[in-house]
Formats: sequence, structure tokens, C-alpha cells
Amino acid sequence: MPEIRKDPVSGRWVIIAIERGCRPTDFTAEREETRGGFCPFCQGNEDKTPPEILSYRTKGSEPNRPGWDIRVVPNKFPALKIEGSLNKRGKGIYDLMNGVGAHEVIIETPKHCTSPTELDDLQFEKVVLAYHDRLVDLKRDPRFVYGLVFKNVGLLAGASLEHTHSQIIVTPVVPLRVAKEMEGCELFYRYRGRCLFCDIIAEELNDQDRVVLESEHFAVITPFASRFPFEMWVLPKRHTAHFTSMEPNESADFAHMLKEALKGLELALQSPPYNYILHTSPFNVGEIEQYHWHVEIIPRVTRVAGFEWGTGFYINPVAPEEAADYLRKLVVTERVH
Amino acid sequence: MPEIRKDPVSGRWVIIAIERGCRPTDFTAEREETRGGFCPFCQGNEDKTPPEILSYRTKGSEPNRPGWDIRVVPNKFPALKIEGSLNKRGKGIYDLMNGVGAHEVIIETPKHCTSPTELDDLQFEKVVLAYHDRLVDLKRDPRFVYGLVFKNVGLLAGASLEHTHSQIIVTPVVPLRVAKEMEGCELFYRYRGRCLFCDIIAEELNDQDRVVLESEHFAVITPFASRFPFEMWVLPKRHTAHFTSMEPNESADFAHMLKEALKGLELALQSPPYNYILHTSPFNVGEIEQYHWHVEIIPRVTRVAGFEWGTGFYINPVAPEEAADYLRKLVVTERVH
Repeated sequence: MPEIRKDPVSGRWVIIAIERGCRPTDFTAEREETRGGFCPFCQGNEDKTPPEILSYRTKGSEPNRPGWDIRVVPNKFPALKIEGSLNKRGKGIYDLMNGVGAHEVIIETPKHCTSPTELDDLQFEKVVLAYHDRLVDLKRDPRFVYGLVFKNVGLLAGASLEHTHSQIIVTPVVPLRVAKEMEGCELFYRYRGRCLFCDIIAEELNDQDRVVLESEHFAVITPFASRFPFEMWVLPKRHTAHFTSMEPNESADFAHMLKEALKGLELALQSPPYNYILHTSPFNVGEIEQYHWHVEIIPRVTRVAGFEWGTGFYINPVAPEEAADYLRKLVVTERVH
Repeated sequence: MPEIRKDPVSGRWVIIAIERGCRPTDFTAEREETRGGFCPFCQGNEDKTPPEILSYRTKGSEPNRPGWDIRVVPNKFPALKIEGSLNKRGKGIYDLMNGVGAHEVIIETPKHCTSPTELDDLQFEKVVLAYHDRLVDLKRDPRFVYGLVFKNVGLLAGASLEHTHSQIIVTPVVPLRVAKEMEGCELFYRYRGRCLFCDIIAEELNDQDRVVLESEHFAVITPFASRFPFEMWVLPKRHTAHFTSMEPNESADFAHMLKEALKGLELALQSPPYNYILHTSPFNVGEIEQYHWHVEIIPRVTRVAGFEWGTGFYINPVAPEEAADYLRKLVVTERVH
């Protein structure tokens, strides 16, 4: 059983894969290296993944057989295990618990696409629906506190398989970065009595300098203090604490905006490695006014060096206003063609 | 002038290089690519760097000429500018200030060594002395709040030049990660009335499971919640809030222990890319009981993917106890030979 350990100094949590039994220097051996070769995510290879948890498939087709549009399976090398009790405990000065949680893979298409922007709009909407359906289901387990949906694109962004997919990791604690964001929002709320993100959205839409895209329900901006060149946030205009509280019409709009933002990024930086990460409220929190779900898109084009690791202080060589301007023009040009 | 901007949600600071005037997609062009070619840090090429701020050199030799052991120069592409006022200000909902600070490079040897472990012990002590001397000097400037000393080794760890060197970035704010560490120590202190690091050191030395090396004044451990395989912390046994409060005999011991730890790392992982980062108290803080300076050594052998970026939650495939055991044996074997 992996352990979830807390660093007493910084408060951050670390999953320690205590049991894999490999030699200390073997730690990269676990990764499947199938680039350019066999792909376990393609239609027809359903038996090469663990059995599916959820699939959207044509009526009458059997589970774990072809006929699906979206397939959700457990990660073959899960960071956390679904069975067992947490057994939160101390060990001398330290705090730890069992590595209980969920780690799932959302296979976004039966075809071997390497970018989510190759999916048609309807398929992209199904991906978003799968995020929703899995989070709603996983929330029911009282051991689980936080559901993190994320995507790695490209080897440098941590993707070990190129077939387009997302992941969900569900943890029994609130991750440090999310807790820190909620703390920032809480501070603002105590002072102003309003949601910080709602104020950010209002100011950005008024100012326009960092707006890349805007639709009925969403805004895509390059944040004021972007850590990375071309970092983007996808923000719902309507205040909602939970991703799962989106209405169906908002959901379709969201899928469209996310796809457009990713297309802009691919055009701007020639298909760079990137991650996107859904930031939403913890499971055990209601529809609070103090947090506002959103997606962060992080291109992985700058090296993160000692300075950044040491400080959490970033150096970004591209002003977000310039990035937004550049992206806006690309997206508009692309739409015209 | 670069800007230092604060993200209102997370509280993190970002240096935005607002003025470089390059096209948004040009942002990697600033890096010198001299691997395997000309090296501006080698003896004889003193005119290829900005004029030196400090050097340890043979008596009678002229500044910016050969004859030095250690040379400290301003970074040719500084993240922050030394001149100007901070002009802390608001901009709508946001907070920012001018990018005033210092960014220096410590050239650790006149010879073209690519690893600091190639330096002899005396030379390594001079490197540590240079850290000390620069921090003492920079602390005098009332605009500056924090001095961060760090080293990048290898391209994947962010080093653009291979000639062994360290960097100092001095910022006008306390970086988020340091603030968070101080907060953790403060919480512990309020509850226990003792320094958290002192308690960690006592427990680790008693337990021995995660101790890699121990000397009269220092302990090298793999931390309980290591984020990365073979992560190590170098901890002074005597409580000191500031790195600059080290006594000369401690300083020599520190240099030796840091070098030994790096040698262990190089042996264990075949000279991996890595960073080390000095964590010390902010300039404007006295000899407090609540913080304890130390060095963190971070091998860059696992990819940091979306999950880690999204959460500040890490997955470490090697238990720190296994890593410590492995490193201990390597270091002992190496000493015998």
C-alpha cells in the first residue's frame, strides 16, 4: 500500500510508492514505452487495459469490447489504491495515512489521435461529460476529499502514452495548492464579501488586455501573474464552486472554449507539450461563494530551474498581455479560414 | 524594467520580463548556447562577462583578468534589475512592483569543470564563502528582503552553461514557498515552543532510517516526505536561522558534507541533472527560533506532470528510506576506495 506523507515544514503531501519493490534506481522502468508502437488505448485493444469503469458506447455493444466513444479505466500503475482504510496516524513527529484513493484514465477517443484538438466538437463534449460523471460518482465515497482532473500532452509534460487521454486522481486530503487558492479567496471574501474570481473576470472583461476568447458562459484569459509563457485560464462567468454544477448548455460551451484555447496554443507554439488542470472545490464543500472552479492550461516550454523550485517564484519571459494579443490574432485568423 | 506581479488567488509572485521586446514565440532565444563550444566562464574570458562584483584572486592580479579562484559577476540576462525604486502599487484588483533586485553568478572555478564535485575541498569551501560574502553584502540594501542561492546542474535542471556555477537572486519580497515553510515552523513553535527542524534532526538521528551522512555539525537526510527520488536535505545541527551565521569551522564542514552528498547522488544516478537550493531566513528577520536554514538537493529524474502542477502534491516512486540506504552504502564504499 502506498503511503501519503505530510511534510511538516511546508504542509505538502507526497504519495510515496513504498511497495513497488523495485531497486531505487529502477524508478523509471514502470513507464510503458509504446510511442510509435503498440497502443493499449486504441479500439480493439480493450483487453490490454484494466476493465472499464465507465464507457459511452453504441447500444448493444459489450463492455470491454469495441463500440465505445469514451472509455474510463483504472490506471494500470495507480498512484493510489481504491481499497482499504485510510488509517490516519502519527509516526514520531510525522503524519501519514494509507495511500487510498482513485486513479483513473479517460480514453478520449477509440482512434489514435495524439491531440485532443483532433476530436470533433461532439466528442470533446463527451470528454467533458466523462469528467462530470466520474467526479459525481467518486464524490459518493466518504473516504475521498478531492478529485483532480488533468491532462498531460507530450512526453515533456509527463505523458507516457500519446493516445489522447485525461486522468483523474482522487485524494483523501485537500492538496496544498488548492488549499492555498481557497485561502487566498477566503481572505478576499472576508475583506470584500465577494468572490475573487468573479472580480477578476469582471476586471479582465472590462480591460480586455488579457482576454483571449469570450463566449456566452466563459472567458479565456492569460492571467495577470502568468507563471509560464502563454499560460491560460478558462473561467466560467457564472459563479459556481464546483465543476459538476455546470448546466448542460454551459458544458457544451466549455468544451468548445477549451478546445479553441488549446488550438490557439498549438498554433502559437507549434504543438508544445502542455498540461491542463481542473481546479474545483473539494467534495466536502458546498456551493460556497469563496471558490470558483476553472481550468489552468500550462505550456511546458520554459525549464523550471532551481530558483522556481526553491521559491515558488516564477520568471516568465513573455508578458501575458503580449501572449493574449498573439493568441487572439491567431484564433481569429484561424476562424476566418 | 521587469515587473513583479502577485497572483491574487495563490499569493505567488512572478517576475514578468515585460520589456525584452522579443516576439512572444522568441522567448528561448535569450539563452546562450555554448555547450561544447566557447565558455565565457573560463579563465582568460573575463571580458565576456559583465565586470566582477567580487573575486578571490592571487595578490597583485588585476580585476577582470586571470588570477582568480572564484569570480562573482552580474547575470548577463538578469531576471531583476539592481537600479531603481520598487514603486509598490495596485492596478485594479492586482498588486505589483518594479522588478528591482539582484541576479548574480558565482563562477566556482577558473577551469572548465562541469560538476562541483570536481573541485577540491578548499575550492568548495571558497564557493561557500562566496555565498556568505555576497549575502552579507546584499543584505545591506534596504530594498532587498530575500537572498536565494541556488545551483542548476545539467540542461534538464535549467543550466544554460555547463561550467560549474551558482546563482543568487535577491528579491524585494519573501517568496511564497519560504513564507509557507516559515508558517509551518511558526505553527509548530506555537504548539511546542521548539524549532521544528531541530525536532526533525533529533528524530532522524535517533531513528537513522533516513540519514545518509552525519558529521560534527551537519546531517544529510532524505526527508520523510521526499518529493523526488533521492531528494536530500543538508541540515545544520546547531540551531541557526541564517546561513550567514555559520562559524568558519562549521562552514568547512558544510562544504565537505554538501560535496559528499552530491558525490553520492552522482554515483547513485549516473550524474543526473539536479538543483540545490539554500533555504535561509529573510534579510529582515533576526536570529529567530522558528526557522532553521538548510539546503535542499533535488534530482530532476522524474517528470513533473499535470498532477503535481495542479496540486503541489507529488508522487515519489522511491521510498526515502530505500534511497538513504542506497546512498549510505555508496558513500561508504566510495570512501573505502
